[in-house]
Amino acid sequence: MLAYSFLNLGPRQNAPRNGLTMVLDKGLGLNETDDLIATAAGSIDFVKFGWGTSATMDRKFIMTKVQKYIAAGITPYPGGTLLEVALLKNQLDAFFAESKALGFTALEVSDGSTKISAQTRAEIISKAKENDFFVISEVGKKNPDLDHQLSIQMRLEEIRADLAAKADLVIIEAREAGKNIGIYDAQGNIIEEELDQIATIGTEKLIFEAPLKKQQVDLILKFGSQVNLGNIAATDAVSLETLRTGLRGDTVNKIKF
Amino acid sequence: MLAYSFLNLGPRQNAPRNGLTMVLDKGLGLNETDDLIATAAGSIDFVKFGWGTSATMDRKFIMTKVQKYIAAGITPYPGGTLLEVALLKNQLDAFFAESKALGFTALEVSDGSTKISAQTRAEIISKAKENDFFVISEVGKKNPDLDHQLSIQMRLEEIRADLAAKADLVIIEAREAGKNIGIYDAQGNIIEEELDQIATIGTEKLIFEAPLKKQQVDLILKFGSQVNLGNIAATDAVSLETLRTGLRGDTVNKIKF
Amino acid sequence: MLAYSFLNLGPRQNAPRNGLTMVLDKGLGLNETDDLIATAAGSIDFVKFGWGTSATMDRKFIMTKVQKYIAAGITPYPGGTLLEVALLKNQLDAFFAESKALGFTALEVSDGSTKISAQTRAEIISKAKENDFFVISEVGKKNPDLDHQLSIQMRLEEIRADLAAKADLVIIEAREAGKNIGIYDAQGNIIEEELDQIATIGTEKLIFEAPLKKQQVDLILKFGSQVNLGNIAATDAVSLETLRTGLRGDTVNKIKF
Repeated sequence: MLAYSFLNLGPRQNAPRNGLTMVLDKGLGLNETDDLIATAAGSIDFVKFGWGTSATMDRKFIMTKVQKYIAAGITPYPGGTLLEVALLKNQLDAFFAESKALGFTALEVSDGSTKISAQTRAEIISKAKENDFFVISEVGKKNPDLDHQLSIQMRLEEIRADLAAKADLVIIEAREAGKNIGIYDAQGNIIEEELDQIATIGTEKLIFEAPLKKQQVDLILKFGSQVNLGNIAATDAVSLETLRTGLRGDTVNKIKF
Repeated sequence: MLAYSFLNLGPRQNAPRNGLTMVLDKGLGLNETDDLIATAAGSIDFVKFGWGTSATMDRKFIMTKVQKYIAAGITPYPGGTLLEVALLKNQLDAFFAESKALGFTALEVSDGSTKISAQTRAEIISKAKENDFFVISEVGKKNPDLDHQLSIQMRLEEIRADLAAKADLVIIEAREAGKNIGIYDAQGNIIEEELDQIATIGTEKLIFEAPLKKQQVDLILKFGSQVNLGNIAATDAVSLETLRTGLRGDTVNKIKF
Repeated sequence: MLAYSFLNLGPRQNAPRNGLTMVLDKGLGLNETDDLIATAAGSIDFVKFGWGTSATMDRKFIMTKVQKYIAAGITPYPGGTLLEVALLKNQLDAFFAESKALGFTALEVSDGSTKISAQTRAEIISKAKENDFFVISEVGKKNPDLDHQLSIQMRLEEIRADLAAKADLVIIEAREAGKNIGIYDAQGNIIEEELDQIATIGTEKLIFEAPLKKQQVDLILKFGSQVNLGNIAATDAVSLETLRTGLRGDTVNKIKF
């Protein structure tokens, strides 16, 4: 039973709940992984093993961590950059096979660090689905100069194309830092007109990367506690859940469920 | 015995010492809690379970963590926001009972996220004392716009009223970020004239929230190593003790005991 | 075997490799130490027990942590500030003896927080070498005002003098924050002309403190993946290795080995 359960904080405390949370794992050890699971597993849906971090560690270590997350009801997946590097090296099949062997059940398909044609992108998504992966595509460039060249129309087209290719969810890129990229300006504040246009596509299929607290607050106050948020620091997973449930100053008495 | 004990760094290394330290626990797991205790318990007096984080976790987990802190000589308490949410829901008695059942021996009384009249505030402090809690009140608003409406006179009055109502200590709010709030400007620098006026009340009963290193340094250099500091990040607890004892560049050879 | 080893990411994955990494340990507990070792020991050469943190903990605790690092092939050493404090108290011999008793096999010789004459500095380096320590000297002042008084010529002279006194490596100071100090401006960006002049001495014997990701990226893109980097946060050790091997967006397909 939750502590202070008499507060009766609403539907987030009962499964199944809306409002997906994706946490960014930058290379946690097993003690830290256990701590994350013990304190926040109930509110975490996905854990991304950031960019290519998985490829710097032993296979057995990655398998152990993957199994811990899955046992806790969380879906782990390797960062899209790793898929991009594999593609650069013409090793996409090996990438799918190794990801499956390591126990990952989801994949991210992105072109944040490399150029991938729309056709190839759709083929990768399809191929990942054929290999029984849950597929999350990511829209946006890691380099701010390149990212700014993406018009909202281009982003919307890419989101629609990814969903048409059967991506299960689409992530709006903001990196670990959350500034000067995608829907955020150089201070990390939301560019409302960009966000509003992207949101026309429906927020159910979108995950907004929101590494900064003010971004989490603003998105929750705008779309309600059920908004899907990603790239949450492991150390902020508990805090995010308090924001969603009106247990932190920024959202006390202001939450729409 | 401490490593390098021949350095003979002064009175902070002998109990009982002055200079209270309150660490902000944003939702640490048990491994992290063990690490915090093993590395810094000797210099930590209070651990605040930040805002409403306690209410997102299982009762048994909270009880285990509370007991770990108490066994290490540290007083844990739930954040004031949780009391405010309970009050909003007319559940103050249940809040006292649950806090006691979970093992907390101190409480924080604040109105950072809600409006509470001076009379109600005094009554809550008194009631918490009647329930045998050590009471720490907090002065300041979480929302910067609302916080700026509090004049120094109003802050001083509130501090005096809290002490008159038998609060054991009064915390000067600065949140987790420490900027644009209370005694700090938008860059997190101390507003000296505000601080000086608040300090007229005597610093023994005050805890200054000081999450940023430069704030800790400036307050230690101004008031000496015995100044009471709060909202210290768990990862900075060891660093703070080195600042207090003249073991970090910013305070080497500059410490008043 | 590494996960995704078919990517064949180049010489960093085979020992002995170039490109030293020094991680800043601000007071990790044993669980955190185990996590750091399990996730990143293969790419870490040195761990600095930051400034005087060692002197706030029990001798047995420090010894246990030192042994963990050494068993993992990492060389731990106490921060230079601690040596400076010992020197202030005329306890240099006791400092050497205690460091050795605690198991440290390397020492840092700095004057970041105090004034030490060139002659004394050379003598300390020599004495540390006579005591069989691996010696890393550090060039720079912790106080930005004092640091700005050091011309590039003075820095170059000090580096040359330290190497002449048989220091094994020289660190270019940037503190934990990496801003407004040494080769970095107030925003933490590299001052190219300062860096270029310092690099004339040869980068093999230098470790650049580079706590910010953009500093790590810029130094890797400038000097190649084998550049020696220090003051890496424990939570960024894995990320740094992905930058070095072209597994993070900033360096994908851009790495010189």
